[in-house]
Amino acid sequence: MNKIPAAVLAATGSVGQRFVQLLDNHPWFEVVALTASDRSVGKTYQEACHWVLTEPMPDWAKKMVVQPSEPDKLKARIYFSAMPADAARELEPRFAAAGGCVVSNASAYRKEPDVPILLPEVNPDHIRLIERQRSARGWKGCILTNPNCTSTGLTVALKALQNRFGLRRAFVVSMQAISGAGYPGVASLDILDNVLPYISGEEEKVAWEPRKMLGELTDGGIRLAELTISAHTNRVAVSDGHLVCLSLELGQKAALNEVRQALAEYQAPEVSRSLPSAPQPPIVVRDEPDRPQPRLDRMTGKGMTTVVGRLQEDAIFDVRMVILSHNTIRGAAGGAIYNAELLVESGLM
Amino acid sequence: MNKIPAAVLAATGSVGQRFVQLLDNHPWFEVVALTASDRSVGKTYQEACHWVLTEPMPDWAKKMVVQPSEPDKLKARIYFSAMPADAARELEPRFAAAGGCVVSNASAYRKEPDVPILLPEVNPDHIRLIERQRSARGWKGCILTNPNCTSTGLTVALKALQNRFGLRRAFVVSMQAISGAGYPGVASLDILDNVLPYISGEEEKVAWEPRKMLGELTDGGIRLAELTISAHTNRVAVSDGHLVCLSLELGQKAALNEVRQALAEYQAPEVSRSLPSAPQPPIVVRDEPDRPQPRLDRMTGKGMTTVVGRLQEDAIFDVRMVILSHNTIRGAAGGAIYNAELLVESGLM
Amino acid sequence: MNKIPAAVLAATGSVGQRFVQLLDNHPWFEVVALTASDRSVGKTYQEACHWVLTEPMPDWAKKMVVQPSEPDKLKARIYFSAMPADAARELEPRFAAAGGCVVSNASAYRKEPDVPILLPEVNPDHIRLIERQRSARGWKGCILTNPNCTSTGLTVALKALQNRFGLRRAFVVSMQAISGAGYPGVASLDILDNVLPYISGEEEKVAWEPRKMLGELTDGGIRLAELTISAHTNRVAVSDGHLVCLSLELGQKAALNEVRQALAEYQAPEVSRSLPSAPQPPIVVRDEPDRPQPRLDRMTGKGMTTVVGRLQEDAIFDVRMVILSHNTIRGAAGGAIYNAELLVESGLM
Amino acid sequence: MNKIPAAVLAATGSVGQRFVQLLDNHPWFEVVALTASDRSVGKTYQEACHWVLTEPMPDWAKKMVVQPSEPDKLKARIYFSAMPADAARELEPRFAAAGGCVVSNASAYRKEPDVPILLPEVNPDHIRLIERQRSARGWKGCILTNPNCTSTGLTVALKALQNRFGLRRAFVVSMQAISGAGYPGVASLDILDNVLPYISGEEEKVAWEPRKMLGELTDGGIRLAELTISAHTNRVAVSDGHLVCLSLELGQKAALNEVRQALAEYQAPEVSRSLPSAPQPPIVVRDEPDRPQPRLDRMTGKGMTTVVGRLQEDAIFDVRMVILSHNTIRGAAGGAIYNAELLVESGLM
Repeated sequence: MNKIPAAVLAATGSVGQRFVQLLDNHPWFEVVALTASDRSVGKTYQEACHWVLTEPMPDWAKKMVVQPSEPDKLKARIYFSAMPADAARELEPRFAAAGGCVVSNASAYRKEPDVPILLPEVNPDHIRLIERQRSARGWKGCILTNPNCTSTGLTVALKALQNRFGLRRAFVVSMQAISGAGYPGVASLDILDNVLPYISGEEEKVAWEPRKMLGELTDGGIRLAELTISAHTNRVAVSDGHLVCLSLELGQKAALNEVRQALAEYQAPEVSRSLPSAPQPPIVVRDEPDRPQPRLDRMTGKGMTTVVGRLQEDAIFDVRMVILSHNTIRGAAGGAIYNAELLVESGLM
Repeated sequence: MNKIPAAVLAATGSVGQRFVQLLDNHPWFEVVALTASDRSVGKTYQEACHWVLTEPMPDWAKKMVVQPSEPDKLKARIYFSAMPADAARELEPRFAAAGGCVVSNASAYRKEPDVPILLPEVNPDHIRLIERQRSARGWKGCILTNPNCTSTGLTVALKALQNRFGLRRAFVVSMQAISGAGYPGVASLDILDNVLPYISGEEEKVAWEPRKMLGELTDGGIRLAELTISAHTNRVAVSDGHLVCLSLELGQKAALNEVRQALAEYQAPEVSRSLPSAPQPPIVVRDEPDRPQPRLDRMTGKGMTTVVGRLQEDAIFDVRMVILSHNTIRGAAGGAIYNAELLVESGLM
Repeated sequence: MNKIPAAVLAATGSVGQRFVQLLDNHPWFEVVALTASDRSVGKTYQEACHWVLTEPMPDWAKKMVVQPSEPDKLKARIYFSAMPADAARELEPRFAAAGGCVVSNASAYRKEPDVPILLPEVNPDHIRLIERQRSARGWKGCILTNPNCTSTGLTVALKALQNRFGLRRAFVVSMQAISGAGYPGVASLDILDNVLPYISGEEEKVAWEPRKMLGELTDGGIRLAELTISAHTNRVAVSDGHLVCLSLELGQKAALNEVRQALAEYQAPEVSRSLPSAPQPPIVVRDEPDRPQPRLDRMTGKGMTTVVGRLQEDAIFDVRMVILSHNTIRGAAGGAIYNAELLVESGLM
Repeated sequence: MNKIPAAVLAATGSVGQRFVQLLDNHPWFEVVALTASDRSVGKTYQEACHWVLTEPMPDWAKKMVVQPSEPDKLKARIYFSAMPADAARELEPRFAAAGGCVVSNASAYRKEPDVPILLPEVNPDHIRLIERQRSARGWKGCILTNPNCTSTGLTVALKALQNRFGLRRAFVVSMQAISGAGYPGVASLDILDNVLPYISGEEEKVAWEPRKMLGELTDGGIRLAELTISAHTNRVAVSDGHLVCLSLELGQKAALNEVRQALAEYQAPEVSRSLPSAPQPPIVVRDEPDRPQPRLDRMTGKGMTTVVGRLQEDAIFDVRMVILSHNTIRGAAGGAIYNAELLVESGLM
């Protein structure tokens, strides 16, 4: 089978690098272009890129000449976008108008009613919004997004419980990795021997994005889930892996073992289950008292699995747990690639 | 004035070291004895002690010969106890029976109905429990305790709001410093590039101890405050300073500026206000979006002040905030010394 | 082919865990027993072991019941020893006397004239010492050792230059990872925001062990290389990967590009070259100004490769460079497994 | 006495902040102006400055309005310069020409023959270069500099030994704190769980600056000391405090206790000894095997003392030791203030 030509937009940043690393030997996609800002255009990727991943840069990427992010000139069919929100807002529609499928990690269009925020384990049916998007905007291509990295693992776990018990209210406190801020991102003087109790815009995203993903696709668009989320977000001295403490009020009472079972036995909808990037199972439940831990558990399922632990009854709400998700794999580039696989599988390319 | 002779029990551990450092030049207390386990007895403190504080060991302590923790032989009037819970359970009553006033950082007796857990800014009146303790147990001395380090800053902030608005329910997530686990305590392999989502016994303490301190002293003892606390406790790569995210349901609705005012203008009860270790004011409110931070703010008020920031309305409860308190100063040795000052001021020695 | 039955002695410690992890699916060896101290005996490995590696514990190991380190009862042919020096001193000879081949990471016997310290890329011929060892001690088995973790990468690099230019004097300053001290090992309070300029016994080992490995096997035993090493050893806040700054006086002058070539083109002696754990090439030379770095480069060649960078002329000696080697893989368990492969290949089992 | 009016140039950066913090309540100097780049001009210092020090911002500084670095408009007599090298090269001469005394932390003019690099404990006589500078350049003011932060502690220790034994060759390996790179400086992703073996331009400075300071002031200028230094410089995950491993060849043989004595009893030249910022003694020698450590020892003598430990015979050269110096206090702002005091004391204002 001929692979689908893909480009990575803003390929030199830390999420861009993850796209390059995870697309190495991808069975369906072949990277034919890497783009970056003017400063990098014309250089080889190796010259232009300050590589920050522990996995080595793939050989095919090293010699690739960085191109500008110009919708008219690039010949890919899928555009993996690691662009910052401002650039994404301007450029992504132009790629979509030119017929490209933009699979974006940017937040720019997540709030648009006709743009889905997708987690293939959670709401693959929302991909049908693309049809509405295309007819409304006259695009041959499309834009689809993955959620903010902190919302990712949280929403996977919530989905498993929504299906069985319903959801009402959730207290969420995150302890987020520095890689979530990109490169150079967090200054070392700000995080060594420290915690930053503030991440700009993050609490709003975590309070809203899960509601869209857990919402229902109706003729009038997505009806937001009636779930109230209170989110505190913090930055800690961890390289990769966002940890979330969750206290949750369910729609109906449930025994702890039922909750555990709902998480551990959760299966992605059938369309998403066998995709190349699908974690199997989507959720791993750890029963040790001190897990999950970012350093030990973030690479579970090649970094695509949501790891849940410390499942207990909550003193105020019904249940509590700790959720770990790899922020630059599952919560960014890996999640976007999984979404692109869903797009292909859904026949919407 | 002659200073009151004091001993530090278990003086070589990390809390013991804090006692020694903070008692240097104390206006009321003079350290006359340092005790430790058999392995250290007979050595000078300098030989026996692996000093882990950034402040230097006081000169007077260096040459002091470490003694065993024997109630009959030590001639102090106040015993600052940094003993682990097991040793404290056995030995502290013997010191109290022998006429010593044990000001303890250990958890061993905190749950006893006739032993107060004291924060001088919060519940100095609870010190009257000592009279009950003495008559019930036939002691000339006494045992009084300070709370667990994570409960400390939390309870100071809660008290300021309880007085004005009442308290109903609280979600609490802590990010705690490694010094809270003593020395050697947390293994570096467990915390470098990591978060530990579990601290043994901690969540139970944080859920219960504030209720005792915020409770009412009645003829029948302390009536626990009717406040429900759900606590998640975590260990992060910070040397000193416990950070707490709090979402709080008040007894009555309050505007955010009223809550801010109640915190910022809070004053300790009169008896506690002018003691040598009293932070003035007890609570500092920071209005920057990204404060408090452990590295920058833990030494506020020589490490005795409770620092509150990120005050906002909460999506589920009424208000939310982030609270910082220095765990080995305010939350351990410094808090105990402040309690001893209250004991003297109250005329109960 | 039937695999050779192997046991891991002291399998629950951090080096023992590395043995277990690296022996998973080894083509030649099959783990048939895991031993540990009395406290762990009778438990499953999963119960007994506080696993600290980021790679998951192999399934076969989880249910294996931990046995005591008794030479008479264990039925392996190869014993991978992760024992501390004291236990190794007592027990390893008993395993060798009982016919077992002890491939040890312990320092206990490295200084014995008839015990080789082996790096297969460097001195595979030294394995012939085993014949002397067997005849002198009446053993059917044997003891062979790998060097101290800091000596490992250093000696590989030195060997590549010794062959071409000779060696005279070397200044060495290490910055060593915390995993080198085992678990719990370095206390987090000692290393967060800190450097420890002292590692007990380490400087002596780094000054001596390379001389033995770089020495000549003669009829009278190993003649130590006439190389003088001055070593400063430090502990830094890195999980894995020992970094070494080296300034080196060669036996004869050499142009920088010749030195680079000698390193980059270095090949292990033929007997070692195709073993399952052989890194290919043994040395990777990085030309960027800021490499090698522990976090980015320690896993080069699955953690078995010696990475050299910052090659420059030295102001006092001839050349200078920075050397990185993974301390628990190449410098401990992985190195020992490579040695065991050499033992098999050499026909000395 | 009226205090001397002083300005801090580039006051919002990390070294600028240190100047502001250390000049709080200085007995001789009073800050009358704070300057920064256009982006900050017109704001209050509190608004303009992302304060990164653990000590709080002095109250007087908070409301001060940031001014541009314009030599004609500022009315100070002393200008403490925390400017980057480029800006310093252009602006510092203009301040000197306008009559200001520029006490600079920048490297821009350190190599000029008529600009002294000063450490008051080491070479206060070099301040006489200013007379030459003034007559050659027609300035009423002057420029004087302090050395690079890594050279600072090293040179103080070397001076103590030069006086008694002479100096020949020195191997130096530094482990430097992140604050040495300013703010934001080192990206957290670059230093968490990592060491950076490269700091641009640093090795050249460490190899040369001590030679100038240890050189002799002659009629023809400074004659560089005949000392060869080989320097490897590294960045480690430490907030403050540069640690240096030194192996040293002396001019004449010396017993270890003589070397220890020369260090411990070293006194600054008389003119420098009683200045407000003078550390007393200049060097503290620690005899414990594991000291100095950055976290525990950097604040020795309020951060102005050079701490030496691990004094031993060296296998190649004569002696070896580990040297610690606080990089933003002694090695930057504090050192510059000490130089300004020397300037006043020398009657050259």
